Amino acid sequence: MRVTTVALAAVLVLGMPTGQPHAAEGPITGFPGAQTEAQRELEARFDAGLDAEDLRSWMQHLSSRPHHVGSPFGREVAEFIAERFREWGYDTEVETYQVLFPTPRIRRLEMVAPTRFTAALEEPVLTEDRTSDQKDEQLPTYNAYSIDGDVTGELVYVNYGVPADYEELERRGIDVTGKVVIARYGGSWRGIKPKVAAEHGAIGCLIYSDPRDDGYAQGDVYPDGPYRMADGAQRGSVADMPLFPGDPLTPNVGATEDAERLDLDDAPTLTKIPVLPISYADAQPLLAALAGPLAPAGWRGGLPQTYHLGPGPARVHLELVFNWDIEPAYNVIARLEGRERADQWVLRGNHHDAWVNGAADPISGLVAMMAEAKAIGGLARTGWQPRRTIVFTAWDAEEPGLIGSTEWGEHHADELRERAVAYINTDGNGRGFLNMSGSHTLERFINEVARDVTDPETGVSVFDRRHARRLAGGDTEDLAATGDHRINALGSGSDYTPFLQHLGIASLNLGYGGESGGGSYHSIFDSFDHYTRFIDPTFAYGIALAQTAGRAVLRLADAELLPWDFTAFEATVSRYADEVMTLTDDMRDETARQNRLLRDGRFTHAADPTETYAPPDPEDPVPHLNFAPVRNALVGLAESARAHDVARRALVAGSDRLSTDQARAVDEILFRTERSMTHPEGLPGRPWFVHQIYAPGFYTGYGVKTLPGVREAIEERAWDEVQRQISRLAETIRQVATDIDRATQFLEPAGP
Amino acid sequence: MRVTTVALAAVLVLGMPTGQPHAAEGPITGFPGAQTEAQRELEARFDAGLDAEDLRSWMQHLSSRPHHVGSPFGREVAEFIAERFREWGYDTEVETYQVLFPTPRIRRLEMVAPTRFTAALEEPVLTEDRTSDQKDEQLPTYNAYSIDGDVTGELVYVNYGVPADYEELERRGIDVTGKVVIARYGGSWRGIKPKVAAEHGAIGCLIYSDPRDDGYAQGDVYPDGPYRMADGAQRGSVADMPLFPGDPLTPNVGATEDAERLDLDDAPTLTKIPVLPISYADAQPLLAALAGPLAPAGWRGGLPQTYHLGPGPARVHLELVFNWDIEPAYNVIARLEGRERADQWVLRGNHHDAWVNGAADPISGLVAMMAEAKAIGGLARTGWQPRRTIVFTAWDAEEPGLIGSTEWGEHHADELRERAVAYINTDGNGRGFLNMSGSHTLERFINEVARDVTDPETGVSVFDRRHARRLAGGDTEDLAATGDHRINALGSGSDYTPFLQHLGIASLNLGYGGESGGGSYHSIFDSFDHYTRFIDPTFAYGIALAQTAGRAVLRLADAELLPWDFTAFEATVSRYADEVMTLTDDMRDETARQNRLLRDGRFTHAADPTETYAPPDPEDPVPHLNFAPVRNALVGLAESARAHDVARRALVAGSDRLSTDQARAVDEILFRTERSMTHPEGLPGRPWFVHQIYAPGFYTGYGVKTLPGVREAIEERAWDEVQRQISRLAETIRQVATDIDRATQFLEPAGP
Repeated sequence: MRVTTVALAAVLVLGMPTGQPHAAEGPITGFPGAQTEAQRELEARFDAGLDAEDLRSWMQHLSSRPHHVGSPFGREVAEFIAERFREWGYDTEVETYQVLFPTPRIRRLEMVAPTRFTAALEEPVLTEDRTSDQKDEQLPTYNAYSIDGDVTGELVYVNYGVPADYEELERRGIDVTGKVVIARYGGSWRGIKPKVAAEHGAIGCLIYSDPRDDGYAQGDVYPDGPYRMADGAQRGSVADMPLFPGDPLTPNVGATEDAERLDLDDAPTLTKIPVLPISYADAQPLLAALAGPLAPAGWRGGLPQTYHLGPGPARVHLELVFNWDIEPAYNVIARLEGRERADQWVLRGNHHDAWVNGAADPISGLVAMMAEAKAIGGLARTGWQPRRTIVFTAWDAEEPGLIGSTEWGEHHADELRERAVAYINTDGNGRGFLNMSGSHTLERFINEVARDVTDPETGVSVFDRRHARRLAGGDTEDLAATGDHRINALGSGSDYTPFLQHLGIASLNLGYGGESGGGSYHSIFDSFDHYTRFIDPTFAYGIALAQTAGRAVLRLADAELLPWDFTAFEATVSRYADEVMTLTDDMRDETARQNRLLRDGRFTHAADPTETYAPPDPEDPVPHLNFAPVRNALVGLAESARAHDVARRALVAGSDRLSTDQARAVDEILFRTERSMTHPEGLPGRPWFVHQIYAPGFYTGYGVKTLPGVREAIEERAWDEVQRQISRLAETIRQVATDIDRATQFLEPAGP
Repeated sequence: MRVTTVALAAVLVLGMPTGQPHAAEGPITGFPGAQTEAQRELEARFDAGLDAEDLRSWMQHLSSRPHHVGSPFGREVAEFIAERFREWGYDTEVETYQVLFPTPRIRRLEMVAPTRFTAALEEPVLTEDRTSDQKDEQLPTYNAYSIDGDVTGELVYVNYGVPADYEELERRGIDVTGKVVIARYGGSWRGIKPKVAAEHGAIGCLIYSDPRDDGYAQGDVYPDGPYRMADGAQRGSVADMPLFPGDPLTPNVGATEDAERLDLDDAPTLTKIPVLPISYADAQPLLAALAGPLAPAGWRGGLPQTYHLGPGPARVHLELVFNWDIEPAYNVIARLEGRERADQWVLRGNHHDAWVNGAADPISGLVAMMAEAKAIGGLARTGWQPRRTIVFTAWDAEEPGLIGSTEWGEHHADELRERAVAYINTDGNGRGFLNMSGSHTLERFINEVARDVTDPETGVSVFDRRHARRLAGGDTEDLAATGDHRINALGSGSDYTPFLQHLGIASLNLGYGGESGGGSYHSIFDSFDHYTRFIDPTFAYGIALAQTAGRAVLRLADAELLPWDFTAFEATVSRYADEVMTLTDDMRDETARQNRLLRDGRFTHAADPTETYAPPDPEDPVPHLNFAPVRNALVGLAESARAHDVARRALVAGSDRLSTDQARAVDEILFRTERSMTHPEGLPGRPWFVHQIYAPGFYTGYGVKTLPGVREAIEERAWDEVQRQISRLAETIRQVATDIDRATQFLEPAGP
């Protein structure tokens, strides 16, 4: 078992006591009786097919040159992956879409007052990083889907540039209309910053990496350590993905050669103002030239200076011109046909395109997925065939906006809605602790997997290592009532979004991290040299990820009955419902409090009269809302979930078995419960997002909003809309409960 | 009324709407019936005697040259003050003590590896600051009562250098034995840093001002703004004042010419290792030369570099040699004899010595006190005489260790225990909000004063302005049940300590602040230029302080019956008792949790095996303690406090009056309740501190420990000592209750 050798080598090198090696045991949901033992034996053979040297050599090759969408090496990367899948016995095709991908022709940023300064906008070549000198193939630092622009204006520092930051500016009498804003990375997904800036009247937006959040304050900078150096900058998309991800010109349909396309001028997800990311070396002179009020304490970053808000006297000139090209995006799709339920597809994916060389993002996750595919291919060569069809997917054009996965998902929407059991995503991976996010119907399932994978550094299960970290960190909440780790809900930021939130396919996103520094993100230094020095030198966690996601794929593909569970789902949705009710109550109290303080002049009396202060406007009182429909629906859901659990346990304990047709019928109900969580009209103002439980926030970007219809309407104080969304949510919950009841009927001795 | 003009001028200059002018009204405790009106009339005349121009000109003179203890101008300052008091009609004397005051002969700090660097240890001369060039008279940057030393060792960064920081270092396998530590200012009183460093085996200690806490991260640096610039350093005492303050050679007795003195070698409050304060310009090369583990996130300061812990490779050589001189300390004591209860003394004090020019610290408070004395002298010239004796005190040698006040307090201990009604202290003052700390028997009293003083910037009372700030800041706790602001308990840091904590005299410490930046503290830039640009340019808050402390003095001096109240005291001590019980319970839970995690290997499993990690040792379980004696005593105290309040209110409402003798007798009981809060044996290990309710923490220095005997024994896990301290505390509370009952008897119709 090569993997054990690698893991032990890592442990020995690191000088850790190995302790009692962790051993997987106990039943596996969906594998009754002796099937559990057979499955464990299969997984041991799967593990034996994983080799850290594969991961290393694939990464070295795949990150050897820049490979963004449309690049020469990007095509080679797709072909290399497809070639491997074919070698390993998969029915493989490359599906190509034609997608909008702007690249910069002119990038100019200069300060024109009170002194002149021209930003370098250039990451340096380092001898310690062997691929950093590939200037001809590297994309320069820019934000994709910024519009063209040529603007000059006074500068204003807006902290993270989220809506609350503009409220703080208003309190200080600062208006950004006609100004260029400079925001620091963090606090939201980057695309939120130009969107909110434009909503407030700004004419341009700079986004810089502050050394407090992403530089020397985090740790030693590259090449001494993994963190971002003064000249490092973060590329990234700023398309308005909370509206819809994917190709900006082909919402809702696959960007095939002949797809109908929007005119560029009508594309709603392009920014409204020009945007450029810059390094802290380029930001420092601009920030140092700001006068005006002192930035609030929480806004001050790590530069050795006093942070002021402006406006001015710094004035900047920003000119951006892009090539608005259509480029081919190559998705690699590799199928291993199921033996019994071939029309039930277990999807597994990771993107392959990168902003530059992308050793960590995305290659570290991709090579783990390739190792899984190779090992599963090895099992298939010995005669094993999965019960269901396994589909490995390697996406192009994730970086500019989840484009490869979204176009494929839109293109094959009907088929996927019919057949997709679940989608398991990975992306960048590192040393440390297992992160599990996704659909709560799979919470129990993925916790079971985590209990069966051994952490390479400590020898305990990755479940236990994660638990140890939470306990040692003083987390008193500990585990859910089920004894499982609560998994996080998915917002956005990787390729699960089209599957989960557009198609209603239960999804998981998996990855390890927390012990490896992250300063190479979206820079030319996300390289093999950086990764193998600082992230996961032995690829032990690449193997751990392959073991984790591989088990998830194998169990979903082979289970006699899909391992869906609704108790954690019900508990989680109930918790979310409590949250939105509490949110409303807190808003009501806070609104009343603030209005009372305004009436009594408290804000004015508390303010320093030597500084400008504008109190907030009074708000309308927050009404009491009728949450009873959701509460009542949840009572039904709890009963359905409990009955299903009881029936399922009785089936496992008893001697009855479902017939294959019965089991297939139950499967179809189970995996489609996620479809029932969607509504065809989608969310208010953004119909592409149809999931009623999980969505990326309209003003957070990556950050999830659970029960998004209700929650965002509350946040927007749109009380009539809240009431409509409450009804819709109740209807959604009742539909899921009805599905569960239908599945449960099959499991009960009488049958349906 | 000159003051109104000044205040309005400030308001107009600042462009604030004046709104409805605040008007004092309602009864004043201790002034029954028509006496209230007479008192308000007296206070209006007092206000009319205050002149902001006096404050300005006195400050300009008193801060025109350095005036530390033993300096030529220090003596002139004392004489100037004494002269004024005499002019204003006070019976004034200068009481002189002979006190140990070391000044530096050699200060050398150099890095000897891995590169060489010699620290400048010098604050620059600025043309914008007219007194910054007085090099001949300025004390250099140093920490008073550091021992002499010549040490060389590897450097370790210890964050704030408090005990918890050394636990973090231990977790990372770092031992400071034989090393020089560098700590940043903050997190505790500075003297704690070398004390704790020495306890852990360090051989030297540097203390620097980090720009995050005290420099550009707080705001613009001098001379652009008020904050500390790169070359600024903070002088200050590092004597072990939590053991005892005052002259290190004469604990417990006044440092008169012929007092018995300890040998220098036996003086327990001198540091055990050499200590030097440095600027961030001097600290930066040292910190940048440290390797070793990354400093924990909360330890990283504002320098533009990654903070490492060491040890080394930076090695530093620190050489310090002092002149161990005995210098004269001149206390100015000015008396205005009382007309009826002359042997009841109301004490009012502020120190006059400074580290350098000291415009803010202490002159801003001193000139307010002088204005009070002048105005009260003016009242006396019109025939008014206070009921009780008023004693104004201007202390020398506060900066090196509360020496002037402590020596006077020790010297006159018997007389003061007999006669002192209360001590009202001020020190530095600035623009903003009223801070009130002190004895909770005076909480109601000082809140009443705060309701009657008008804030110069807003026109509301200073009580309301403070309330507005708390409400606007989101403070939901709001006011105490009494409707008053809770006043803070006193730890240490100014001249109230000998009166409150050594002699058991009820004390208050008053000052305004919160709108003026504080980067000049203990530097050559604490100057008239700095103060009048950045702190309180119009002296409006100097006037507000004089109005506040002056009212407190006048009311304490003139009240028919001293305005003591025990309901807030009882509520506060009950809260403290709850706190120490909760502390014990939390420690018990946390100890059990930590031992369980240790047993299960959780810390080791959570740790990154590529870094050194040493789990903490298991602790003995925390026993359940018997707090019943304190609880029972508090039940009695609550009843006594309630009965006293009822009797006092009945007296005010009724037509009965106490005879002068009766009132005097009640007074004597009331003000001596604070004596009953002391115990002759003092606190464990530090008998000088006798107060059982308030003390500076042994490991916090300035920060208060309430119920110190019990609380510190819990923190030290000395469970037998806790039980002894609980008994003593219960006895203390019962004694106070007995005193209250005795006073109450006089108030009741039957009389005692």
